Amino acid sequence: MKLIIDTFGADKGAEEIIHGTIDAMRNKSFEPIFIGDRKIIEKILEEEQMEDYNYRILHSEVQIDHGDSPTMALRQKKDSSLVMGLRLLKEEGDGMISCGSTGALLAGGTLIVKRMAQVKRPAIVLNFPTLRGNTIFLDAGANTDCTPQLLNTFAKIANIYGKEVLEKESPEVYLLNIGAEEGKGDELRLNTYDIMAEESYNFKGNIEARDIFLKGPDIVITDGFTGNMVLKTTEGVATAIMGLLKDAIHQTKDQEILKAMGKVQGLFDYNKTGAAPILGVKKPLFKAHGSSSRKAFKQGIYTMIDFIEKKVNEKIEENLKEES
Amino acid sequence: MKLIIDTFGADKGAEEIIHGTIDAMRNKSFEPIFIGDRKIIEKILEEEQMEDYNYRILHSEVQIDHGDSPTMALRQKKDSSLVMGLRLLKEEGDGMISCGSTGALLAGGTLIVKRMAQVKRPAIVLNFPTLRGNTIFLDAGANTDCTPQLLNTFAKIANIYGKEVLEKESPEVYLLNIGAEEGKGDELRLNTYDIMAEESYNFKGNIEARDIFLKGPDIVITDGFTGNMVLKTTEGVATAIMGLLKDAIHQTKDQEILKAMGKVQGLFDYNKTGAAPILGVKKPLFKAHGSSSRKAFKQGIYTMIDFIEKKVNEKIEENLKEES
Repeated sequence: MKLIIDTFGADKGAEEIIHGTIDAMRNKSFEPIFIGDRKIIEKILEEEQMEDYNYRILHSEVQIDHGDSPTMALRQKKDSSLVMGLRLLKEEGDGMISCGSTGALLAGGTLIVKRMAQVKRPAIVLNFPTLRGNTIFLDAGANTDCTPQLLNTFAKIANIYGKEVLEKESPEVYLLNIGAEEGKGDELRLNTYDIMAEESYNFKGNIEARDIFLKGPDIVITDGFTGNMVLKTTEGVATAIMGLLKDAIHQTKDQEILKAMGKVQGLFDYNKTGAAPILGVKKPLFKAHGSSSRKAFKQGIYTMIDFIEKKVNEKIEENLKEES
Repeated sequence: MKLIIDTFGADKGAEEIIHGTIDAMRNKSFEPIFIGDRKIIEKILEEEQMEDYNYRILHSEVQIDHGDSPTMALRQKKDSSLVMGLRLLKEEGDGMISCGSTGALLAGGTLIVKRMAQVKRPAIVLNFPTLRGNTIFLDAGANTDCTPQLLNTFAKIANIYGKEVLEKESPEVYLLNIGAEEGKGDELRLNTYDIMAEESYNFKGNIEARDIFLKGPDIVITDGFTGNMVLKTTEGVATAIMGLLKDAIHQTKDQEILKAMGKVQGLFDYNKTGAAPILGVKKPLFKAHGSSSRKAFKQGIYTMIDFIEKKVNEKIEENLKEES
């Protein structure tokens, strides 16, 4: 299994990414293709005595910045780690993982690797813990303006993905909305509801944002603008609460408090899944968090290997073909 | 000052509303006009020995339920406390406060009390504490589909309201968006940004959802669908975290932990402001939370009295006229 590792784009630097990959190599069988500064990559691999492992290195000194315009960057930075990686993914890679610019990964996934015929635009899909099991949440920020048809495609994709990663026969699919009752919502939600209600996946109607963390629905469908709002609000509220508690927690000796805080941290621990698939692209493409730790990146590689072994992309493409 | 008190619609029953109003009567000078079950209202006023205070009671046995279609309910339930209250507000009231159906209050505010000439649709405006001062947030859920022009009107309204309640010369106005940079967002946000940038209020550009609680911007403008998402996510995440900590907190004797938890609770304490104005309606109309406690309702009345004394509605109408 050839996995393309983009070593650029992480807040903590390429070292964190390379070390995370090495940790994964020691536990899982795959051939990493590192893209980035050859000297740094070789130095760390040598220090870690990885000479008996299979790996390749492609040298790149060019990085696409998070502020770059995605389509401009793809055109002008053809020798960037991200563009080189996507080209390799198309040609021979089994999967690629990158902390790089989400916009560039989406645009490049579509333009270079190509999207599945039935998917107008790919979506970023999160799989995160709640008080009651995991929730698959999409679109987590890729497409700011969505049509009802696109949201319905997201639901179909999520349904297949959900069967595999939640290990459920028929995961429950919800539409994120301002109220649980039918007939609630804006124009987009009202039209989407009608379409989703006719589909063969297990559509359970609307769900309110407060119930994502409290009830842990299997699958929640929304547009990328709203997805961003929900995720960033979650981050802001959790950070605000933790900030207020931090000093007191650091000093306490109360074991029950520490145990409870551990549970809270588990709820917002992005290290657990490590990376999110960009679904709808023809080859497995994973976006890792910019602030990924070594542990999170390792976990991201595990998540991607599991995804590839379960042939999730093939199953999605097959299912969409059957339906069309 | 005649304040109309809708005693129906509270989760905890009319008693909580009546007691909250009595608490306010003992501290502030106003004449409440209670609408609801006369027997219950009289009984409590008698028990509390309020015979020396000015008040009126209008009897109603009809309640608009939260599930009712707002416009249908307004037409069919003309003797409901909510419709009677809105008619009285139009004729002689100085303000009205209700825990009733938000949809019915909005529709009734527009159809019965009437909206200001320059405001196409009223907005629900929250004023809540953050880590750094209070934030005025609108639309908190009234209008699911908004135009750039409507969002701009909300910004103008919020600017006047903000000057009064934040006591700032020139409050900073932000547009809620998926990124802080210009050029981010969906169609609606891109078009709104261009309009807001031309206005005379102190527009500071985009703000991300995570920064509302962390940075405490003066004013945040968004559509009612997104407003609902942010508020319900906040509620869900805060409830989830508190739920995980609850037992440990109840048992701890660590004073620092308890002090820090007090601060967290303060951040999400809706009792503090008690009620939210529906701005754009010609007379002061306040929506109190359905789960209002006696204390929250009392605070809601205080908030409304302050709003009336500061002549906020008059100032908004004047300002909009000057600009048009």
